[in-house]
Amino acid sequence: MKEIQKMIENGQLNELSALLAEMNESALRNLVSDLDAVDKVFVFRLLNKSTAAGVFEDLDVDQQALLVSSMEDPEVLHLLEIMDPDDHARLFGELPASVTKRLLASMSPEARNAVNLLLGYPEGCSGRVMSPRYMTAREGQTVENVLYGLHKSSLRPDEMESIFIIDRERHYLGYIRLGQLIKATPDTPITELIKGENVFAYTRQPRSEAIDLIMEEDIPTLAIVDSEKRLVGAITFDDALDMMEEDTTADIHRSALVGPVKTNIKDASVKMLYKARLPWLLILVFVNVFSGAGIALFEETIASVIALVFFLPLLIDSGGNAGTQSSTLVIRAMATGDVDSKDWLRLVGREAAVAVLMGCTMAIAVSVLGLVRGGPEVALIVSLTMIIVVLVGSLIGLLLPFLMSRLKIDPATASAPLVTSIADISGVFIYFAMATWILGI
Amino acid sequence: MKEIQKMIENGQLNELSALLAEMNESALRNLVSDLDAVDKVFVFRLLNKSTAAGVFEDLDVDQQALLVSSMEDPEVLHLLEIMDPDDHARLFGELPASVTKRLLASMSPEARNAVNLLLGYPEGCSGRVMSPRYMTAREGQTVENVLYGLHKSSLRPDEMESIFIIDRERHYLGYIRLGQLIKATPDTPITELIKGENVFAYTRQPRSEAIDLIMEEDIPTLAIVDSEKRLVGAITFDDALDMMEEDTTADIHRSALVGPVKTNIKDASVKMLYKARLPWLLILVFVNVFSGAGIALFEETIASVIALVFFLPLLIDSGGNAGTQSSTLVIRAMATGDVDSKDWLRLVGREAAVAVLMGCTMAIAVSVLGLVRGGPEVALIVSLTMIIVVLVGSLIGLLLPFLMSRLKIDPATASAPLVTSIADISGVFIYFAMATWILGI
Repeated sequence: MKEIQKMIENGQLNELSALLAEMNESALRNLVSDLDAVDKVFVFRLLNKSTAAGVFEDLDVDQQALLVSSMEDPEVLHLLEIMDPDDHARLFGELPASVTKRLLASMSPEARNAVNLLLGYPEGCSGRVMSPRYMTAREGQTVENVLYGLHKSSLRPDEMESIFIIDRERHYLGYIRLGQLIKATPDTPITELIKGENVFAYTRQPRSEAIDLIMEEDIPTLAIVDSEKRLVGAITFDDALDMMEEDTTADIHRSALVGPVKTNIKDASVKMLYKARLPWLLILVFVNVFSGAGIALFEETIASVIALVFFLPLLIDSGGNAGTQSSTLVIRAMATGDVDSKDWLRLVGREAAVAVLMGCTMAIAVSVLGLVRGGPEVALIVSLTMIIVVLVGSLIGLLLPFLMSRLKIDPATASAPLVTSIADISGVFIYFAMATWILGI
Repeated sequence: MKEIQKMIENGQLNELSALLAEMNESALRNLVSDLDAVDKVFVFRLLNKSTAAGVFEDLDVDQQALLVSSMEDPEVLHLLEIMDPDDHARLFGELPASVTKRLLASMSPEARNAVNLLLGYPEGCSGRVMSPRYMTAREGQTVENVLYGLHKSSLRPDEMESIFIIDRERHYLGYIRLGQLIKATPDTPITELIKGENVFAYTRQPRSEAIDLIMEEDIPTLAIVDSEKRLVGAITFDDALDMMEEDTTADIHRSALVGPVKTNIKDASVKMLYKARLPWLLILVFVNVFSGAGIALFEETIASVIALVFFLPLLIDSGGNAGTQSSTLVIRAMATGDVDSKDWLRLVGREAAVAVLMGCTMAIAVSVLGLVRGGPEVALIVSLTMIIVVLVGSLIGLLLPFLMSRLKIDPATASAPLVTSIADISGVFIYFAMATWILGI
């Protein structure tokens, strides 16, 4: 890495070329990912055309966008030639509109049509990520006909693993797997082998539903149809795997209330991160004003027993942590479909039982501390508060995601930071109200 | 759902049978998942054998285990017959050892061998999840030979999409895709088509690495080899998709410091959840004792300006929230391989810049509150503390995952609750030290 950066600085072109020629594609891909934007293009130009194309194809889409933005059109077009149209659409979605327009203009008419079609669908829907490269067969054909068609087709071997069956109007009727054709006798009518007449997704359906269908049906390729059930594209398992990883990353970021970061974290700019992270932090500052107001209400209680403040972070954190656990469990179960928005009532009783048991165990632990630091009254206040705070925190964590999903807000928003802040406010009130009552102030 | 529970209670067997007969497999699967353990078995027995087998195959492994534990052996054996050996191993891993032993004893010798082989590998490694069903071909064969072999084999069509090439000693040499055989002429030697001689995983390699390889290479099936590179099994893309979802769920649970929950959350018992959730909550209680000790140090400062307590939850939460954001971004980037343990130094400078910018913005927001509630001195203390607390919280969130990974602890442990607690302790010290200094106490 450093060696290579030094070579670039010193302009040692021959040495660098020789070194790059010895590296394999995966090492090159890692190298290109790690370099700065300018060095990236530099190294890229030293690769021979076919190696460059192979490396480019496997880069993350944000890395591709970075490279394309810094290269000249003929170079870019060469790279685009070897990419699939669905990958074009993903790349173009990342590029500035002006660059997209310029590149589209110089592409072949067929490629342009394919990309434009995919770009016409909103982001996140199945149509946007489908590929126009797939094999079709008509109802009337036999196994032999289809095998001959595959043999002569211009599709790549990995695009043949499912064959979609359509009628004269291109309506989707089902699929057959390539292996079925091998097992069957040549004169078998394909209608005898057909499966999955209900296994397809509409172009406007969220892509996550298409991925779920691929997972459920264990198929290498899923048919994508328009509103009249006419076959228009296909999503393959390898795209499903990539998208699943992308979607999981977005979900996890949302769980820390981080907005969309459309690039590898290593390359994100200060401005991008500031914009993604600040909004919720500011909202939470205002939410937390309520805990301050709560404390102000109990100023007298605090003034008379300052030792109460010692236990404040401990107690409110415990509620927040228990709440974070419940909300994380529920949000994930909702995402995988293990729990749906009607299940809340069923889970409340069990959650309360778990929370009270945990609260009691934690109360025993803190009562010792309370005794040592503040005497028996403080110990009693702290223990009772612990039980209630863990219970309330857990129930908030459990119910908030259900509430969000009722309000059509992404339940992942009800995550650690928000649950912690709300649990803190309740914790402050419970704690000082309990203290005021027990101390008889 | 309710209707069906009522039918079971009232013993309306005929009505129930009729209703079940009308439902398709996916509706039945959802129904069986949602029912209580006893009702599950009840409904299951009313299904005809082949429907029952189809529904069983697609249930979650914990649901399968639940059913099998409550059924009699002949019924179970019928279900096992239709499952793949790798799925057997997964199911048996979930069952009590006594049940596994009894079932293994009554299975066919071949099936028993296959399962025993898989069970011999530790959980989480590739060997444990590989399937023994895959197609092989020898170096010397032609396309025609292999196609004929496939046509005659007992493999299912979906098990034929990759053909692994081996030598006389079963050493793995590479693979070909079924589609390549269709495109090639019948007399082509398969050695001309062979690809991916380095694309395989060892049985002892973590399964996550096998999944990454499937994603990277876009292959339907990955070869699994023993330490001498002899072919022993295969992992398919559909298993990869399922495992990816399982692993993500485990990671997300760990991010809330929840221990392993080996079942659908809806079915988890109070005891199971208590055991999974309590340990870290207790550890965090002890971590938080330090924030109490910090407050005790500054008792005098607090006693002289009680208004300082109003801002305590607000300030420590802000540090914790900023820290949660950084740790979440880093942990995920480590999981996807975008960032590795050597990158920390490179990220610190940018993180500090982002944190100071966010801290200043938040300081402006809270200074108004400080002015209103405590006067100019409190406003100054609160604003300065906010900037430092957000900076320190962010750096803790950034660096803790790197530290964990150096110490060979799963970096996901450095997640929201732990970062929050550590940020809270620093927040308490920073806040009251700043107050003591500015107020000149």
